[in-house]
Amino acid sequence: MAGYIPIPSFEELTDRIHSLPGVGRKTAERIAYHIVGMDDKEIDKLVGSIMTVHEKIHRCSVCGNYTDKEVCYICSDEGRDESVICVVEKPRDIISFERSGVLNCKYHVLHGLLSPSMRLKPSDLGIDSLVERVKNGSVKEVIMATDPSVAGEATAIYVSKLLKPLGVKVTRLGYGLSVGAELQYADEVTLSRSLDSRCEL
Amino acid sequence: MAGYIPIPSFEELTDRIHSLPGVGRKTAERIAYHIVGMDDKEIDKLVGSIMTVHEKIHRCSVCGNYTDKEVCYICSDEGRDESVICVVEKPRDIISFERSGVLNCKYHVLHGLLSPSMRLKPSDLGIDSLVERVKNGSVKEVIMATDPSVAGEATAIYVSKLLKPLGVKVTRLGYGLSVGAELQYADEVTLSRSLDSRCEL
Repeated sequence: MAGYIPIPSFEELTDRIHSLPGVGRKTAERIAYHIVGMDDKEIDKLVGSIMTVHEKIHRCSVCGNYTDKEVCYICSDEGRDESVICVVEKPRDIISFERSGVLNCKYHVLHGLLSPSMRLKPSDLGIDSLVERVKNGSVKEVIMATDPSVAGEATAIYVSKLLKPLGVKVTRLGYGLSVGAELQYADEVTLSRSLDSRCEL
Repeated sequence: MAGYIPIPSFEELTDRIHSLPGVGRKTAERIAYHIVGMDDKEIDKLVGSIMTVHEKIHRCSVCGNYTDKEVCYICSDEGRDESVICVVEKPRDIISFERSGVLNCKYHVLHGLLSPSMRLKPSDLGIDSLVERVKNGSVKEVIMATDPSVAGEATAIYVSKLLKPLGVKVTRLGYGLSVGAELQYADEVTLSRSLDSRCEL
C-alpha cells in the first residue's frame, strides 16, 4: 500500500494527526490534505491558536483544572458551595458535571489514576494538594468521581483512606454509571442519578 | 451550554479543530484538551509538521497533484502510459486509483468542479493546463474521473467539449459507482469495475 504519496513531510503530518485522540487514519489523511490546501492566513490562525493555548493554558494552582489565569474560574467563583469537593481524573470530566448542572461545588483534578501496575505513583497525582485543601478548608464532603474502572476504584479507595482520618465524609458516585465506561461520555441523566445514589466510602 | 470552559483561547482552538473535515464537536474538544496536555517537544513537532507541509508542499507544475518537488512523482515516472490522462477533482482522489492498482497512467487535478451555481469558473480550475497537455503531448484518451454528482457530470461534459475537437478520446467512469457517492470513499472493486465500464462522452 506504500508509495502512493511518497512525500515524507505529508506522511509525518498524517501520522501526527492520526495520533490525536479520536482521529482515524482516513480522517487524518483527509485533514492533512485539507491543511495542504489552506492559505497562509488560515495556517497562521491554526498554528497561532495551538501556540496560544500551549503558552497560556496551564493548571489552576488550587484545583488543577486548566485555566489561563492563576486560579481557575470555578475556584474563583464565590457562589459555589465550598464544603463539597468533587474529585475527577481529568479537566474534561469537569465539563460533564458543569453541563449537567447538578453540582454547584468545587472540584479537584488528579490528572491521572493509580493503576494496579502503578505506572503513576500517588505523588504524581494531585493528591497531596487535595489533602492540603481538606486540611485547611471548610470541606465537609469529598465526592470521588473517578471512572468506574479498576484504576478509578483503586484511586477512590486510596484517597478515601487518606481523607477519612481528617474527619471529612468521602463518597463515590453511585453505580448509575455503567461499569467499564468512561466518565466523559456519560449523559446528564446518568450523571445526575449517580450523584443521587452516591455512597460513603 | 456556554460558560463551562470560559477560556477564549481554548474555545477558539476547539472551533478551529471542529472546522477541520471529519471532526465533530466532541472530538474537537477532546483533541483541544489533548493539546493542552502536550509538552513543549510534542507541540513543537505538531506545529513544525504543519508548517513544513504548508511551506514545502504545493501543486505539481504539470498535473496539479500535491508534491514537494517541482514535478510530482507520477509526472516524473517514465514507466507510466503517457497516452492516458485520468482527470480528478482533488489530489486525494488520485490515492484511490493508486491504491486500486488498476491504472498506470498520468493524472490531472482540477482542484474543484464547475457547479450549477458557477461559484467556480472554468478559469479557476486546472482546465487550461489540461487542454495544453492534450495539445502538446501524445495523449490518446482522457478519462474524466470526477464524482458522479451533478457538478462532476457537468464538469466532465464541459471538459469533453473542449477536448474532443483536439482529436482525443474522452471517457468517463462507468456507473459502477453509486450515484451521489464521493469518489474518495469508493472501494477498489467498485473503482475497478467503473474503469472497465467507462464510456465515451
